[in-house]
Amino acid sequence: MGNSFGRIFRITTFGESHGLGLGVIIDGCPAGLSVDEDFIREEMQRRKPGQSKITTQRKEEDEFQILSGVFEGKTTGTPIGMVIMNTDQKSKDYSHIADKFRPSHADYTYFEKYGIRDYRGGGRSSARETAARVAAGAIAKLMLKQFGIAVQAYVSQVGDLKLEKPYTALNLSLTEENIVRCPDQDMAKKMIEFIDEIRKSRDTVGGVVTCVAKGVPAGLGEPVFDRLHAELGKAMLSINAVKGFEYGSGFEGVKMRGSEHNDAFFQEDGKVKTKTNYSGGIQGGISNGEDIYFNVAFKPVATIMQDQESVNEAGEPVTVSGKGRHDPCVVPRAVPIVEAMAALVLADYLLISRTNKLHV
Amino acid sequence: MGNSFGRIFRITTFGESHGLGLGVIIDGCPAGLSVDEDFIREEMQRRKPGQSKITTQRKEEDEFQILSGVFEGKTTGTPIGMVIMNTDQKSKDYSHIADKFRPSHADYTYFEKYGIRDYRGGGRSSARETAARVAAGAIAKLMLKQFGIAVQAYVSQVGDLKLEKPYTALNLSLTEENIVRCPDQDMAKKMIEFIDEIRKSRDTVGGVVTCVAKGVPAGLGEPVFDRLHAELGKAMLSINAVKGFEYGSGFEGVKMRGSEHNDAFFQEDGKVKTKTNYSGGIQGGISNGEDIYFNVAFKPVATIMQDQESVNEAGEPVTVSGKGRHDPCVVPRAVPIVEAMAALVLADYLLISRTNKLHV
Amino acid sequence: MGNSFGRIFRITTFGESHGLGLGVIIDGCPAGLSVDEDFIREEMQRRKPGQSKITTQRKEEDEFQILSGVFEGKTTGTPIGMVIMNTDQKSKDYSHIADKFRPSHADYTYFEKYGIRDYRGGGRSSARETAARVAAGAIAKLMLKQFGIAVQAYVSQVGDLKLEKPYTALNLSLTEENIVRCPDQDMAKKMIEFIDEIRKSRDTVGGVVTCVAKGVPAGLGEPVFDRLHAELGKAMLSINAVKGFEYGSGFEGVKMRGSEHNDAFFQEDGKVKTKTNYSGGIQGGISNGEDIYFNVAFKPVATIMQDQESVNEAGEPVTVSGKGRHDPCVVPRAVPIVEAMAALVLADYLLISRTNKLHV
Amino acid sequence: MGNSFGRIFRITTFGESHGLGLGVIIDGCPAGLSVDEDFIREEMQRRKPGQSKITTQRKEEDEFQILSGVFEGKTTGTPIGMVIMNTDQKSKDYSHIADKFRPSHADYTYFEKYGIRDYRGGGRSSARETAARVAAGAIAKLMLKQFGIAVQAYVSQVGDLKLEKPYTALNLSLTEENIVRCPDQDMAKKMIEFIDEIRKSRDTVGGVVTCVAKGVPAGLGEPVFDRLHAELGKAMLSINAVKGFEYGSGFEGVKMRGSEHNDAFFQEDGKVKTKTNYSGGIQGGISNGEDIYFNVAFKPVATIMQDQESVNEAGEPVTVSGKGRHDPCVVPRAVPIVEAMAALVLADYLLISRTNKLHV
Repeated sequence: MGNSFGRIFRITTFGESHGLGLGVIIDGCPAGLSVDEDFIREEMQRRKPGQSKITTQRKEEDEFQILSGVFEGKTTGTPIGMVIMNTDQKSKDYSHIADKFRPSHADYTYFEKYGIRDYRGGGRSSARETAARVAAGAIAKLMLKQFGIAVQAYVSQVGDLKLEKPYTALNLSLTEENIVRCPDQDMAKKMIEFIDEIRKSRDTVGGVVTCVAKGVPAGLGEPVFDRLHAELGKAMLSINAVKGFEYGSGFEGVKMRGSEHNDAFFQEDGKVKTKTNYSGGIQGGISNGEDIYFNVAFKPVATIMQDQESVNEAGEPVTVSGKGRHDPCVVPRAVPIVEAMAALVLADYLLISRTNKLHV
Repeated sequence: MGNSFGRIFRITTFGESHGLGLGVIIDGCPAGLSVDEDFIREEMQRRKPGQSKITTQRKEEDEFQILSGVFEGKTTGTPIGMVIMNTDQKSKDYSHIADKFRPSHADYTYFEKYGIRDYRGGGRSSARETAARVAAGAIAKLMLKQFGIAVQAYVSQVGDLKLEKPYTALNLSLTEENIVRCPDQDMAKKMIEFIDEIRKSRDTVGGVVTCVAKGVPAGLGEPVFDRLHAELGKAMLSINAVKGFEYGSGFEGVKMRGSEHNDAFFQEDGKVKTKTNYSGGIQGGISNGEDIYFNVAFKPVATIMQDQESVNEAGEPVTVSGKGRHDPCVVPRAVPIVEAMAALVLADYLLISRTNKLHV
Repeated sequence: MGNSFGRIFRITTFGESHGLGLGVIIDGCPAGLSVDEDFIREEMQRRKPGQSKITTQRKEEDEFQILSGVFEGKTTGTPIGMVIMNTDQKSKDYSHIADKFRPSHADYTYFEKYGIRDYRGGGRSSARETAARVAAGAIAKLMLKQFGIAVQAYVSQVGDLKLEKPYTALNLSLTEENIVRCPDQDMAKKMIEFIDEIRKSRDTVGGVVTCVAKGVPAGLGEPVFDRLHAELGKAMLSINAVKGFEYGSGFEGVKMRGSEHNDAFFQEDGKVKTKTNYSGGIQGGISNGEDIYFNVAFKPVATIMQDQESVNEAGEPVTVSGKGRHDPCVVPRAVPIVEAMAALVLADYLLISRTNKLHV
Repeated sequence: MGNSFGRIFRITTFGESHGLGLGVIIDGCPAGLSVDEDFIREEMQRRKPGQSKITTQRKEEDEFQILSGVFEGKTTGTPIGMVIMNTDQKSKDYSHIADKFRPSHADYTYFEKYGIRDYRGGGRSSARETAARVAAGAIAKLMLKQFGIAVQAYVSQVGDLKLEKPYTALNLSLTEENIVRCPDQDMAKKMIEFIDEIRKSRDTVGGVVTCVAKGVPAGLGEPVFDRLHAELGKAMLSINAVKGFEYGSGFEGVKMRGSEHNDAFFQEDGKVKTKTNYSGGIQGGISNGEDIYFNVAFKPVATIMQDQESVNEAGEPVTVSGKGRHDPCVVPRAVPIVEAMAALVLADYLLISRTNKLHV
């Protein structure tokens, strides 16, 4: 269980790091959407390994193929099947970790849960799985674009280096100008240097991705359990290495008084707006038409290039030695994943919202 | 949509603040569980309004009735229907806010979404809805107890007053000793005084609830989208006024190095354990047998006893004046709600985990 | 599990025959629907026991109460909670069957499944549960009416007495003119006499209910697994005592040649129609705008007023003696239940169909 | 929507008749199951076109590839992704039907529903889609075998040729001995001759598949809406060309008296059994340990080698001419599809039943 996400616009994914391939079925994508395969390819480029000196140097081409659901360039309403073959899945030797539990990985928990595990590259628990999410998310983004909705994420913190400016004081169109994906170029430079140091010290560090959705109409979100921010939170927390989620005022908001936190309503150009936006664009679990924004906390990558103590399947003490090419910090590559998951939630809730009133 | 939670142990709730009543159907509760109605009653007492000077002075008795699913004191496997009648639902006059949108409430968003709203006391968006959650959560707790699992929450922050000690340095059995539900009695005193001041200033303030689950066996959680912490996060974010969720090292963890954040495995008494627990008891989305702990951030209550600017349904500027009896800070009463939602997630995932292997 | 039905317009029911009460939560009913409580009451009258000499003489008033989701006569989009209290649930003595398995009842299977059972009146397996379906179905019917869709069922067979005329040769407005609910008054008379004989012989007999849905627009149904007729079939097969379902040409259609069975298309008044309707209004699992019609087979009621051999929980041979007041034939009272379930399916699929295309 | 089936053991399929390929993701298959790829291949051979003179002469090899979820021959608990590439999907010319609605096909309804359709070979509505079901069903069968459960189907009727003997009077191991898959060799011969005549007359005919499940333990089935036979019925009705479903006594049972229809319980070798089995192995929606058996009615194939009147997308009268190689009768190839869907239901319900009691 657990490999599907969404209710109407619903994805189901499969695939291990070193199996033959991975993929996704998108069920419920409405018919008539033009599918721009170049755009999907660009999105996957943003996620793929080996794209810069601060990401893993592993090379994976992530070529996808759409097997169904698209006819003459348009979605037909039938399920969209996509596969991404693993081109070099047999090349590596994993015997050194085959029966060892790497600290803070999913080796031990998968073994306990299933009694068997594919130890090659983390198997299903590998972040490679997110390639399928980005592919599906790209189609969700194409759909959202038709309704004037755009989702943009960026790196707002790496270790202690925190961008204090809110997103409203940033030019988000500059995010892709640097390899760390921080729209503030000065901070970006510092972050890149810092990650490079971390990498040289054979260690890793965490970070925060901030995401903004603009153009979301009022009325998206299904109370009480499927509040819009609850589903966004789940979507983010389902991404590898995520430890926290906050939206609007978030954890800082707990320190505020109601009198300063409340967002006063006013009307402008016939539209109800709020003067401040501590609500983060969501009130009572339903979008209010303001920008939606939230932060996602990522822990330091568990694979470090150092020896670590652990146990093996027999419970005996062993040493685990980091090998291979891994990310010293996951957040630059996490940016498109965060966007993809946000887009999937919004596409799904947009469709659901068509059923709220007696007449559309 | 959105009024059900869980897959196997699944609840569906209904009810508005000022309708005739509210309730819940629990489907999928296993047969053979002894239902201790006194325990359910105690749990509901912990949530109900009017329990202390720092909560709302509103009186609601929250008497529940189990209409089905229990026979001779035991669950039968059939759905458990529970109702809680609203005893004084017609007593109040809400005409003063009938067409006004209260700031940072759900008035505007419900109106935009549904084109109609029950304005009495917030209708469905009222926290009164959580009474049904606590009732259902009590039954989940009774089930978990049979498997040695206990869920305990406490207030760890009110405004700037933050308990810096981790839960491991606290005696959680003292939580219910004071009205703010903070197990550190010195801090509790400060929090109570602070909330009382806030109340007198006709304002409100936010806070944080920390929750710990002990005795959870390894193997609970369904990757990739239904990771255990993702579902816990969604459960928490679905509670009124919640703005953030973090587990294990959380947002602080982003500052750490992988070499310090990784939890080394060792074996003790034939059981695999970790030396530290930055993972928060969950790795790869699956419980590892260590304590699960997480924080939930609550914003300041939106209803303040002050005049605020807003607009009405016609978009005209209006003044909204706080009336009635409301909580100056929601966290003391949120403690049992957080526990209830956590228990519901764990009960559900415990049952699902029985399907993971070919043979049980 | 198993007590919910539908995806968007979704019901969850609870309640045993002799518990305190039963009920239903309707989630996903669109906002803005006028709720005619008199109509709901009439529908429930059609199902309730004691309505004529050929149904059980048991008296149940089936008074329902709407606890939520309706404000000033209209649905608000929030869940509609309805309860029907069992007024005389404690009056009977069931000790004579407490540990016996009645033949062709659910006593044995519930006991095997859950290890415990509420033996009073069949508990959850009692057809009393369908009262909640009829209540919810009445609201679905009110919604469908707004879109010009009407669902009508009637008794087409009792034992060997089979109405050979197709529904197109009948005046369905006459169905409620007689107590057996057969629109052909001659056949109705025969059926009533026959059931009365059966009753006197302390036996029971089966029957068939035919159902017709008119005004269903083309485009409802979700291939491949959720074909419209597959969901209708499941809905019908979920009703107590149902043994079979067929739509359009049904089982008779297997004898036909493709050349006679195919429904030729033609256009009339700018609308595509079919000359014949062996398809039963559904092609490829999607409605085509023609009438939808189907048959539902009900077995003879298991409770007979005769002694029967059986075993008890200990596996010992026992005699089970029929007691109480039961239906000699279930189909007259099944008519509104069949309609209710059909209406629930159509309401759900109508809402889902709004998500099929990019733009509504 | 609509391309997933099952709750725990859950499949999601994709693929059109003439797209690049089709496939299925199985989520929830328990870990530790040995996957016999040869067996899957054999099952797919039973379904594939071109296997005998009474099926379509179209050649499709239906080679499948397992891309994930299986490691060293065993399932790992992670989703099993399977693809079946369409090897000659571009070879045909479909321009002659590109804008025409073939009678009793899904051309018109897909067009009305989605506003666009892949007209090549019926697109998603083609029975080619069932290849993915058979692949998934084979894995479900392998799982069921571990629990002593076997599912076997056979052809019991073709046109008017009806096998009157019940399954208990047949040797089901002879089913695969002839190309029509009828275990009675005399009847098989007649059926084969009849289908061959039908084929020569450029027409088609319907038929019935009977299916038997042996070894199903008591306790499977989730009342009230997810009764075991309701889910089996939906599963069958979701197969192309199916018009009806009945289990146990079925439509014939309506003619019986309760006194003859009731299945008397007795005990033998410490096991509760029934003397007759009109219940079809299911009582109250829950299996009782007896054989489960049911009939599935298939209409005559819509594609006939004759000219037919119809309309095109513009509503103009056109003639549709049958082309290509099609089945004169679908039932011989439907046998493995019926078995596959039954196996999927039973595998799913077997896993769900583990959650019914407090302790497994």
